[in-house]
Amino acid sequence: MISVHLERGRISIEETDLPERPPGFALIRLRVAGICNTDLELQCGYYGFSGTPGHEFVGEVVEADTPYLIGQRVAGEINLACGDCDFCSIGFDRHCPNRAVLGIVNHPGAFAEYLVLPERNLHVLPDEIPDEEAVFTEPLAAACEILDQVMIADWARVAVLGDGKLGLLIAQVLHAHGAQVTLFGRHESKLAIASDAGIQVESSNNNHRAAFPFVVDATGSPAGLKEAVSMTRPRGILVLKSTVHGQVPVDTAPIIVNEITLVGSRCGRFEPALALLRDHRVNVASLLSAEFPLQRAPEAFAEAARPEVLKVLMRPN
Amino acid sequence: MISVHLERGRISIEETDLPERPPGFALIRLRVAGICNTDLELQCGYYGFSGTPGHEFVGEVVEADTPYLIGQRVAGEINLACGDCDFCSIGFDRHCPNRAVLGIVNHPGAFAEYLVLPERNLHVLPDEIPDEEAVFTEPLAAACEILDQVMIADWARVAVLGDGKLGLLIAQVLHAHGAQVTLFGRHESKLAIASDAGIQVESSNNNHRAAFPFVVDATGSPAGLKEAVSMTRPRGILVLKSTVHGQVPVDTAPIIVNEITLVGSRCGRFEPALALLRDHRVNVASLLSAEFPLQRAPEAFAEAARPEVLKVLMRPN
Repeated sequence: MISVHLERGRISIEETDLPERPPGFALIRLRVAGICNTDLELQCGYYGFSGTPGHEFVGEVVEADTPYLIGQRVAGEINLACGDCDFCSIGFDRHCPNRAVLGIVNHPGAFAEYLVLPERNLHVLPDEIPDEEAVFTEPLAAACEILDQVMIADWARVAVLGDGKLGLLIAQVLHAHGAQVTLFGRHESKLAIASDAGIQVESSNNNHRAAFPFVVDATGSPAGLKEAVSMTRPRGILVLKSTVHGQVPVDTAPIIVNEITLVGSRCGRFEPALALLRDHRVNVASLLSAEFPLQRAPEAFAEAARPEVLKVLMRPN
Repeated sequence: MISVHLERGRISIEETDLPERPPGFALIRLRVAGICNTDLELQCGYYGFSGTPGHEFVGEVVEADTPYLIGQRVAGEINLACGDCDFCSIGFDRHCPNRAVLGIVNHPGAFAEYLVLPERNLHVLPDEIPDEEAVFTEPLAAACEILDQVMIADWARVAVLGDGKLGLLIAQVLHAHGAQVTLFGRHESKLAIASDAGIQVESSNNNHRAAFPFVVDATGSPAGLKEAVSMTRPRGILVLKSTVHGQVPVDTAPIIVNEITLVGSRCGRFEPALALLRDHRVNVASLLSAEFPLQRAPEAFAEAARPEVLKVLMRPN
């Protein structure tokens, strides 16, 4: 089979054997995969990654222990938990300290014609959700995670900083929740996507000092985090949704003086994301920028890295 | 009257007029005042402060609009709120954007023979609490603030980092609450105070990676914040209780990957602090290091700045 290989920042295409399917796992044939900013960060050396990346995918189960799954179209949760530890025992698979992570930590990813995942990680997709929308399930779940962590009243004012893929998904999720969302970004074409979805947008955050009870930082920049702190009102909640590489200089004084709560937020459950997609409560198709065959992964990665580009998909031939 | 004056890091003693008492304010004769780390930071140029510092005090009301207050022994909340803004209207005086702060922002402090404060800031002290314990009401309230912000089960494991005055008070407050507190510090004599109060202490935090569901950083150092993050378990809560000057380099990745919640925490309500003092549920007398007359404030400040010293008090003659 064809698979994408990433090593020391270089993307190549390899011909490899089908992955072995351990007991309890399903063998999945890829239908479509999406390139995430994390993949671009892996390319930059984040996690010292070497192997097959890719964790956003839709596939078809070709082999499984559970007969019902065979032939089903699925999306898959990316954390492979041990099932035995304290975290797993309380249902926090995503925080299992022994976990592998699809295409990120110790498990080959979805940028390949075939992949394996534990059956319990799989979600059978409703027919109403086409492949090129279902491929957003994982990042959309990460956006939904905010509402699993923070009680945001459905009328609350929320600022979302950053008009990248994640910022646009977060803004839509919180808008669908009922919150009064303002998305702050620097790219007219990206802000237009949010605006078309009925979300208020602003290209500058001037005059919003301490104005928002809820702020989400999805900028991925140290400057963004600083702005996010300054826009959060005293006793407000700031959700940290995007990592910044290395050490970020943070002035802790306003956090303490204004008693701001910062909430780190990562992966989420798939169920609320699938419900939003099925019910057309978010518009992910508007985030699609380009599509490449898997064999042209180097071009696909280069395209995904361009600032004006949002989601780039890859499909096997 | 005698008052302490701080300007460009220099402490001096001045002879000044009695402060004017605006309507709604009380004139208070100082009985005893405590030097806080914030006072030492003001001396280092924090807030560009110039004037009379001091915000931990016990005094006697000598003039007031409300006759009942006259002659009463009082402690006083330090935030002078406008009473009109959105924050004041929901009882969050401490976050009033127009506030002055006793001895810190735009209001002369308690290191003087007389001070004025709004009557509504005053708490009449129960006779059971002697002056040299009541003077801890304000910092103890700051320690209690944690329990107003974060739901900590009364059996939860909590790590408190930093064995300074605030760390020792926080450890005692959380211990009195019922939590299983471990205090981490570097000073044997200070750890002994916590140990005598029945609190577990450790002089090293090795082997505690991701071990605590609740962590309180009261180190006041960038290294402390980093250690605190590493000791917080996934989905755990880290309370930021002490500011660090300037920019602190923070690695946001573990905060996001482990979905840690950081809670900035500052001043607290006086009521729970007074209840703890009245019921002898904390031992603040063990934190007393030295006492000086107000006239010897420069020596008192120098003494308070020594690493092994805890609380230094000043009294008018």
